[in-house]
Amino acid sequence: MPLRTVEQYRESLRDGRAVYFRGQRVADVTTHPVIGVAVEHASIDYAMADDPAYRSLAVVTDETGQPSSRYYHLPRSTDDLLQRSALIEQATALGNTLVVLIKEIGSDALFALHRIAAQLDSQRATAYLPRVQRFYDHCRTNDLALAVAQTDVKGDRSKGPAAQEQPDAYLRIVDRTAAGIVVRGAKCHTSVATNANELIVLPTRAMSEADADYAVAFAIPMNTPGLTLLASSFGAEGLAERSAFEYPITARHKMMETTTIFDDVVVPWERVFLAGEWQYAGPLALAFVEFHRFTAISYKLPLVDALVGAAQLLAQYNGISRAAHVRDKLISLIAYAETLRGLTQHGAARGQAQELGLVVPDPLTVNMAKYHFAHHYHEHVAEVQDIAGGLLVTGPGLEDLESEEVGPYLTKYFVGGGGVSARARLQAFNFVKELTSSEYGVYQEVLAIHAEGSLEAEKLMIARSYDSARTLNLVRTMAGLA
Amino acid sequence: MPLRTVEQYRESLRDGRAVYFRGQRVADVTTHPVIGVAVEHASIDYAMADDPAYRSLAVVTDETGQPSSRYYHLPRSTDDLLQRSALIEQATALGNTLVVLIKEIGSDALFALHRIAAQLDSQRATAYLPRVQRFYDHCRTNDLALAVAQTDVKGDRSKGPAAQEQPDAYLRIVDRTAAGIVVRGAKCHTSVATNANELIVLPTRAMSEADADYAVAFAIPMNTPGLTLLASSFGAEGLAERSAFEYPITARHKMMETTTIFDDVVVPWERVFLAGEWQYAGPLALAFVEFHRFTAISYKLPLVDALVGAAQLLAQYNGISRAAHVRDKLISLIAYAETLRGLTQHGAARGQAQELGLVVPDPLTVNMAKYHFAHHYHEHVAEVQDIAGGLLVTGPGLEDLESEEVGPYLTKYFVGGGGVSARARLQAFNFVKELTSSEYGVYQEVLAIHAEGSLEAEKLMIARSYDSARTLNLVRTMAGLA
Amino acid sequence: MPLRTVEQYRESLRDGRAVYFRGQRVADVTTHPVIGVAVEHASIDYAMADDPAYRSLAVVTDETGQPSSRYYHLPRSTDDLLQRSALIEQATALGNTLVVLIKEIGSDALFALHRIAAQLDSQRATAYLPRVQRFYDHCRTNDLALAVAQTDVKGDRSKGPAAQEQPDAYLRIVDRTAAGIVVRGAKCHTSVATNANELIVLPTRAMSEADADYAVAFAIPMNTPGLTLLASSFGAEGLAERSAFEYPITARHKMMETTTIFDDVVVPWERVFLAGEWQYAGPLALAFVEFHRFTAISYKLPLVDALVGAAQLLAQYNGISRAAHVRDKLISLIAYAETLRGLTQHGAARGQAQELGLVVPDPLTVNMAKYHFAHHYHEHVAEVQDIAGGLLVTGPGLEDLESEEVGPYLTKYFVGGGGVSARARLQAFNFVKELTSSEYGVYQEVLAIHAEGSLEAEKLMIARSYDSARTLNLVRTMAGLA
Amino acid sequence: MPLRTVEQYRESLRDGRAVYFRGQRVADVTTHPVIGVAVEHASIDYAMADDPAYRSLAVVTDETGQPSSRYYHLPRSTDDLLQRSALIEQATALGNTLVVLIKEIGSDALFALHRIAAQLDSQRATAYLPRVQRFYDHCRTNDLALAVAQTDVKGDRSKGPAAQEQPDAYLRIVDRTAAGIVVRGAKCHTSVATNANELIVLPTRAMSEADADYAVAFAIPMNTPGLTLLASSFGAEGLAERSAFEYPITARHKMMETTTIFDDVVVPWERVFLAGEWQYAGPLALAFVEFHRFTAISYKLPLVDALVGAAQLLAQYNGISRAAHVRDKLISLIAYAETLRGLTQHGAARGQAQELGLVVPDPLTVNMAKYHFAHHYHEHVAEVQDIAGGLLVTGPGLEDLESEEVGPYLTKYFVGGGGVSARARLQAFNFVKELTSSEYGVYQEVLAIHAEGSLEAEKLMIARSYDSARTLNLVRTMAGLA
Repeated sequence: MPLRTVEQYRESLRDGRAVYFRGQRVADVTTHPVIGVAVEHASIDYAMADDPAYRSLAVVTDETGQPSSRYYHLPRSTDDLLQRSALIEQATALGNTLVVLIKEIGSDALFALHRIAAQLDSQRATAYLPRVQRFYDHCRTNDLALAVAQTDVKGDRSKGPAAQEQPDAYLRIVDRTAAGIVVRGAKCHTSVATNANELIVLPTRAMSEADADYAVAFAIPMNTPGLTLLASSFGAEGLAERSAFEYPITARHKMMETTTIFDDVVVPWERVFLAGEWQYAGPLALAFVEFHRFTAISYKLPLVDALVGAAQLLAQYNGISRAAHVRDKLISLIAYAETLRGLTQHGAARGQAQELGLVVPDPLTVNMAKYHFAHHYHEHVAEVQDIAGGLLVTGPGLEDLESEEVGPYLTKYFVGGGGVSARARLQAFNFVKELTSSEYGVYQEVLAIHAEGSLEAEKLMIARSYDSARTLNLVRTMAGLA
Repeated sequence: MPLRTVEQYRESLRDGRAVYFRGQRVADVTTHPVIGVAVEHASIDYAMADDPAYRSLAVVTDETGQPSSRYYHLPRSTDDLLQRSALIEQATALGNTLVVLIKEIGSDALFALHRIAAQLDSQRATAYLPRVQRFYDHCRTNDLALAVAQTDVKGDRSKGPAAQEQPDAYLRIVDRTAAGIVVRGAKCHTSVATNANELIVLPTRAMSEADADYAVAFAIPMNTPGLTLLASSFGAEGLAERSAFEYPITARHKMMETTTIFDDVVVPWERVFLAGEWQYAGPLALAFVEFHRFTAISYKLPLVDALVGAAQLLAQYNGISRAAHVRDKLISLIAYAETLRGLTQHGAARGQAQELGLVVPDPLTVNMAKYHFAHHYHEHVAEVQDIAGGLLVTGPGLEDLESEEVGPYLTKYFVGGGGVSARARLQAFNFVKELTSSEYGVYQEVLAIHAEGSLEAEKLMIARSYDSARTLNLVRTMAGLA
Repeated sequence: MPLRTVEQYRESLRDGRAVYFRGQRVADVTTHPVIGVAVEHASIDYAMADDPAYRSLAVVTDETGQPSSRYYHLPRSTDDLLQRSALIEQATALGNTLVVLIKEIGSDALFALHRIAAQLDSQRATAYLPRVQRFYDHCRTNDLALAVAQTDVKGDRSKGPAAQEQPDAYLRIVDRTAAGIVVRGAKCHTSVATNANELIVLPTRAMSEADADYAVAFAIPMNTPGLTLLASSFGAEGLAERSAFEYPITARHKMMETTTIFDDVVVPWERVFLAGEWQYAGPLALAFVEFHRFTAISYKLPLVDALVGAAQLLAQYNGISRAAHVRDKLISLIAYAETLRGLTQHGAARGQAQELGLVVPDPLTVNMAKYHFAHHYHEHVAEVQDIAGGLLVTGPGLEDLESEEVGPYLTKYFVGGGGVSARARLQAFNFVKELTSSEYGVYQEVLAIHAEGSLEAEKLMIARSYDSARTLNLVRTMAGLA
Repeated sequence: MPLRTVEQYRESLRDGRAVYFRGQRVADVTTHPVIGVAVEHASIDYAMADDPAYRSLAVVTDETGQPSSRYYHLPRSTDDLLQRSALIEQATALGNTLVVLIKEIGSDALFALHRIAAQLDSQRATAYLPRVQRFYDHCRTNDLALAVAQTDVKGDRSKGPAAQEQPDAYLRIVDRTAAGIVVRGAKCHTSVATNANELIVLPTRAMSEADADYAVAFAIPMNTPGLTLLASSFGAEGLAERSAFEYPITARHKMMETTTIFDDVVVPWERVFLAGEWQYAGPLALAFVEFHRFTAISYKLPLVDALVGAAQLLAQYNGISRAAHVRDKLISLIAYAETLRGLTQHGAARGQAQELGLVVPDPLTVNMAKYHFAHHYHEHVAEVQDIAGGLLVTGPGLEDLESEEVGPYLTKYFVGGGGVSARARLQAFNFVKELTSSEYGVYQEVLAIHAEGSLEAEKLMIARSYDSARTLNLVRTMAGLA
């Protein structure tokens, strides 16, 4: 079966799913003024596979000659990880710094499910792995778009799932029937859910025995009864009317997040991947994260490269490239971006084979990379804003430039460094404005801190992944205490 | 004459001024969907003077018993500076962190003009001071709203005004007639110009003899022929329809910036305050800055206090106040805000009397305060975003909460720490979102870096204001080299 | 009674006290090769009082015309605090950046004892205040040198005093007799103990009821039986032979710290200021800290000024003052030093009268100042080292310069910027080396972090001193939640 | 020929070289109380080659079966670079964080000379490469110790070599004779010169045509007439008497730097590698740096690992491992150390073959690594000092612990976390004190900033090595400007 076309993808989303936007049920996500932009953006994935320029990167062919999306390729070597990273980076670059994500995160979840199912089946009398594999084949063969729901609403943060006053604060199994399990709860921050085909659900943390009913993982189609998606309206105002001149990113690129409600949803057993084995909830959450943070640092590369390029471009257009402080800021941006890139590649290079031979990127390196990105993002945005200048927020619009009455003033007064035209300079400003000083800009700021794990989560993983005995022994020896 | 009412202020803006917004001439700024919000916001100034709660802060009474706005009160003591600072802070707090600015910046310019005119008249055979004083009386007596245009478009940054290929890259005198001077050029970043009564124009930098025609300062009414205001459309999209629930800041608070065009504008001699005395261009620019940076750090106080409070409130609503990293971030925010406050007050305490007995805040302290604010703003925004959580950009809207179909889900799942309701929590999120993670949020980020002087400008002033001989001598003595 | 002379001070130290240095009992501290330098340094205090240049700063005259050291002057106004701060700063400047401390810290303890004794006597049927006042009169009238022992050895940090396996891990009362209390334990980091006359002992933390025997404060002469001082040998190697050319600081300036052992020391009741009233242990520790951190930031001023001056001097001697990165580092150092100075003065300005009318510097401001100093000290040392250059650690010595054989090479090759001689440049290097890149330099690094309270202690005080309700209410109002 | 023994190495240093220490000519460096320690330390290199535990790392065997030191192995692959890095790291670990350097830096220079000689010979009618190769064979075959002199004294930093008032401020050719060139000048910071066999001299910067006489590179034995070494006395005081308990690093490990004087030294043509070809001075300096910064980041690894281990050990001994701020500091240290390690390995992985197939580590990655190390070193030292505590500078000495009189007090009171003995805890403190809070500690601080290129030099290389066109094009495409 060939990979899907953009049109097939769009068509697949008209399935009766329960999506709400600003309190209104959305009849057709593909034609919705806001979610439609997200569908457009997601189509990059299908378009790339069909584009000779990207096909070799985007598509792999298995032993039988069958093509499939590289996202679904199980990584069995450092090179697999590097190719996957390169694909994620390229897709995000085509997304003008916005990740596509309709297969990236889902395949991370599938890899993790493979690992933990293998572990479970080898340690218990379970048979999860075949189910995982059948679901994986289904996704890959049908070239599906996937979303992943992990973060619960959590209620009282100081208490575990079973200790909550509100028992549904974490998603849980409320019944087990012949047909399957029945689940209830709510998940936050579910990216691309509005325009994915399947939803994979994972636990968000380690569990204790009392939490057994909360140790649950599964996958369901988006139009499953009882599943409701409340789409966020962040950044949606006026989206449908945006011009690519003024909004070079968001006029065509959008990702939707939902609050995802499970109102006694029935999940057939064939789609259940964890149901009560509480000891495996933490490992599954972790296994997902080990793949997903690597995915994350891969799709942050075009974003940090764009910060560098934005500073370069406006330094040139503003005629200030030779100022000492501008040069310093450019170097600071370069070191920021390239440290992320270097650690990303090094994380792949240090990958280790785990269950089923799946190669997992080095968690220490990956988490350092992610923390480096996240902890310093805002200061580097500030550097770009500094070089760009206050016109980011006080400058005129395209209509002013095109006005017969006042346009000539702008044409005269906004000429940039090296004689660049007012129009080109304004266009450059618009890109840098969207990138750093707009709702999209702050969206990236907030994602830097929260998406794919918080700063604290990354610090925790650095501590856990580090071989503390090595340095402790080194120092004991040096101090004469060994 | 009593102070103006809000209605008188609004009425005064319907004077035929040439304002353009997105390429269209604006017929009436007070009813324009975007600029009208800025007029509303600016009205805070007139409302305060009329409000018993603020009258003693906002209004001073002169020897003759005549009341006038405290903004116009010439500072002759540390206490005058502290009262002025307190007024600016209070007005900005009523502006929900957005400065009002219709008298703040204008009075800074007036103070500076007094100082330099006094200097000029005492050193040259000029009579600028009486003109300045008459204009000052006009503004104060008529309780006017003022804008200040200073930053030129600048052309090639590596060259001075007279060396530019485009001779109008800096505003200049193109003719001198019996009626007055004729000026041509363009100024960027002119705040509140759309809704002020008078525009004060100052030079932006030190000048050389060749630049004499660029050494010009004056004031003109906003409806002066040849004066065109191109209003920025930043943050304007959908502004008119915003609800105070979702947009607690921008639904009611807005500041307009313009690119300000002078197309052979005639300025009568009575309103000319500098015209060719190039040696005074730098001192005038500097004198303005010495007052204006103090004004700036005063109106940043509600903003940094709001960052602290936002973090406190969401730490509480998210139920994470006791987490070690949250506590650390709160302390970091407190130290940030209170260092700014402490240095602001100390800058007033160390103020020195200059020309005409005007007390100027200590430039070293004020510039350290401003740099401290500006250099660290983004990192503290990141701390607030960290504590607030990803729901800032992925959460549902008010319509979802109020929907019969899906509202109950949110009511159930979004309860916050200490049992706070989903609605209150969402309202708190909305404020923190606007403050830190919205177009308004990034507007403040960009202003932090660029408004009232760049980081580099502040560093320069720190170097210039410091008594280097003191520490050099101290160290020479300690080293035995004295 | 007039103030003591240097000789009287030296003589008073020959009292049979039990001081050990590198395992050996010290017969006479004034002639000991290391401790003798500390005695010399401490003499600055007595020399200043006798020096017309400093007498008005160092000495106050009471109502009866009796002169006494200003250190003992109970602060009853902001001006008292500012004068005290100026005296501490001047003495430290004469100490070439090393604080003298023989009255600074002791008077902080006396002020705190006044406050808490007053509190105690007013709330309980105790009579501590008269004892405190008599001891205070004794110190002031006899112009004594004082040390303060506060930090216990602490044992297991996760447990309180009474819960320790080793009951003496915190100093405690082991017996109460007619003669007085008997105390046992050990205190760390007791500064200037080797060359003080009296030792004031304070509790180090808040206590619970179980800890009542650990809630103890008192004062004893240094030669009290059972009191043993183990002097630290840090930085002592070769001290006696140091030349002022090569070691412009440590050849003449030294502070001694001891581990202070109390082996069943009898303290007469007249000298007991707390004995079992566990509720007051925390307040007393805190009251001390509230005065002492203000003292600390006052004596850090010459140190940070010296960093600025060191960078200025070597930038000049190295001929690099105009380099952009050097200018940036100088500005960074200036802002660091002047922010500390500004907050110190502001802390005094915001002082509040407490028990007995004693004015306490504002704890929020003082702790921000101290944290600012401590948290950023190392990075500013790095800036000075950067400007100074690698010759700090690779350069030749004075003997090389003075050698007939090789001296001429150095005279030729080490000429500095502006034609400064090799000798002057070497002398400047030596000062900067001692200041930043020597045992003295790292001593100051470690003190920055640990002395007068750790970074964590300062953060805790910032959190405690802040009026959280103010900002929380501000934000609730702004968000429409009030 | 087998590799040299330690004894052969020591013997080779008794060659009449002109070394001065504190103005005195040193008769025999191997028995000198200070330089002798440096000789001991350098012997690690020869001991490793003879030690079965390290032989496979330290020694390579060529095609003819001849063993030689791996340092001399010309890198022709990433693996060669990684092996070289591992050897440098291991030797430095045996040096208790102090690099050995007697072959590390010299081989960097040899690699660079190969590259530039090949370039020169291919572009000009010169025959430098055979000379370089013969000198290289001499060094490798005889297993020699090498020093490199590069940094000139520089005089007025704002002028180039030929523009100096003092013409010898940069080393220059003052004559050319049949026997060779005659050179005059002085070089700073020459590491290990006192105990190396040969001195390689390189230019320190790019040159212009006027500077042709300053474009000079060569090698000479240390006992060459006219060559004088002025050894630095930094950190030398009392070195000979240090105990390994109290000084676990410097009692046995020392590196000597010299100011190196060339007083009309004759260099035979066979040893001249550049003499007037000014266009190649910059490339040669750069080629050296490209190898040497990789060497540098390799030998910083044990130092940063020791910071991590020191913090771990004292957190444990102080019983504070579970405190939140301690955990945060440990994570910060880990991320610091492992980012350096990751970038070091990545720099090797991205190495590129250049002239003669020599593989050069990626300069962008290497300079980012070095800058990362250098720019953040002080803050991480502060973290270790913070965890270690004030006892670093106030604690007792070994003699106190061993004293019959006072030792029992310490045995009782200094027990550490987990019941560790006072002696072990003191020993641990001593190591951490030497590492971070001693003359050795600050020596490493200053080296971090200045050795192997300054921070500014690293920033310059980051800017030069970066492919600016890539990001500029990316952004132009994204902005619609391409």
